Amino acid sequence: MALSDVKALTFDVFGTVVNWRDSIAREAKSSLAAKGYDEDWHAFADRWRARYQPAMEEVRTGGRPWVKLDDLHRENLVELLRESEIAGLSESDIDHLNRAWHRLDGWPDSVEGLTRLKRKFILATLSNGNVALMVNMAKYAGLPWDVILGAEVAHAYKPQPEAYDRSAALLDLRPDQCMMVAAHNGDLVAARSRGFHTAFVSRPLEHGPGKTRDVKAEHDFDVIADDFIDLAVKLGC
Amino acid sequence: MALSDVKALTFDVFGTVVNWRDSIAREAKSSLAAKGYDEDWHAFADRWRARYQPAMEEVRTGGRPWVKLDDLHRENLVELLRESEIAGLSESDIDHLNRAWHRLDGWPDSVEGLTRLKRKFILATLSNGNVALMVNMAKYAGLPWDVILGAEVAHAYKPQPEAYDRSAALLDLRPDQCMMVAAHNGDLVAARSRGFHTAFVSRPLEHGPGKTRDVKAEHDFDVIADDFIDLAVKLGC
Repeated sequence: MALSDVKALTFDVFGTVVNWRDSIAREAKSSLAAKGYDEDWHAFADRWRARYQPAMEEVRTGGRPWVKLDDLHRENLVELLRESEIAGLSESDIDHLNRAWHRLDGWPDSVEGLTRLKRKFILATLSNGNVALMVNMAKYAGLPWDVILGAEVAHAYKPQPEAYDRSAALLDLRPDQCMMVAAHNGDLVAARSRGFHTAFVSRPLEHGPGKTRDVKAEHDFDVIADDFIDLAVKLGC
Repeated sequence: MALSDVKALTFDVFGTVVNWRDSIAREAKSSLAAKGYDEDWHAFADRWRARYQPAMEEVRTGGRPWVKLDDLHRENLVELLRESEIAGLSESDIDHLNRAWHRLDGWPDSVEGLTRLKRKFILATLSNGNVALMVNMAKYAGLPWDVILGAEVAHAYKPQPEAYDRSAALLDLRPDQCMMVAAHNGDLVAARSRGFHTAFVSRPLEHGPGKTRDVKAEHDFDVIADDFIDLAVKLGC
């Protein structure tokens, strides 16, 4: 159960690796300002993201069968556009805007930090994003993953235990040979309860200047780091 | 259906990307010669590999539930050791030798060719090897995959249609946006029947000097290449 047993780092992605809020605001503006709409685009991003957990919760509780995140994002977008009285988008326009989640920028330290960490560890995504979303985002943002795991492959949305258990099993590793890396206390607490090691990385700007949740590590995680460079240093990379 | 629509290259791995025969012979010798056994190690590799298709066939036909390739390899190894009257290995020795399949060398052009192809395409494994096997092999041989797909994720062994269909679906691509790359005619014929584009790459030494099957492309595949550098050139990379 020692830290030296860790072979794989499994990453939360939205917020931990990529800056979804600024990227979605940029993409929404790019798609919709050209059609004459003027909104607070960061608020638009926040309102889209606010529908994320409730949509997954329906799947988690068995209220509906498995639906991948791209499809949940699209349903949420259609509702958000209606609520915002934004009309006149073709199906293809909506698809393009929905795939804004495939075009998220890494935080400034993400690529360098991951590249250093990759020398010593298997780097796996353990995100609620589906495989195509993660693959396209990695191509866009230059994220050097070794393997795309997480919700779609495990058929379970975090923090369901199966999301962690099946990801470790696919790597043929014991849970304690995996370290969950996330900017969210809840994700790490769930991973720890399945036997994973844990690393908290601060992402104070995830929700813009007014972030009130997950500002700091609220538990005694194995590693607490300021960013991925600091994580690499603390893990001896 | 044009070649220019191809977004992802999906790779057969054993024989196409890595030289399993020489690598397994080296690993078997390394494990067993030290214990005083003297064999034709290439013949040992061939005999281990000969049990590969029959073992998967039991799963394909529903004769037994899903078993990942690492476990089939291990069962086959235990039988082969018994047949070869090789005894005295601990469970841990057998595990180490079984994971020889995680330590296969790429062909001389594999890393350079894949690195060039990766600039333009998503590179996915579509192998019968399980996820951990593919991930560990990629770390060992420096193979720059974007995503590990194939049998374990699809829960189907090639050439079952589901192995191809589910891999394309996970990438959220139409089959004709994928190109199967393999040194084996049968794999390409199966992929083509599911709508994939196809590229045959010659690997004349896969079975040593005496290769008699898959010496050349036997069908009118979209691309026929001498190696991965030639494939990169022919695909404009």
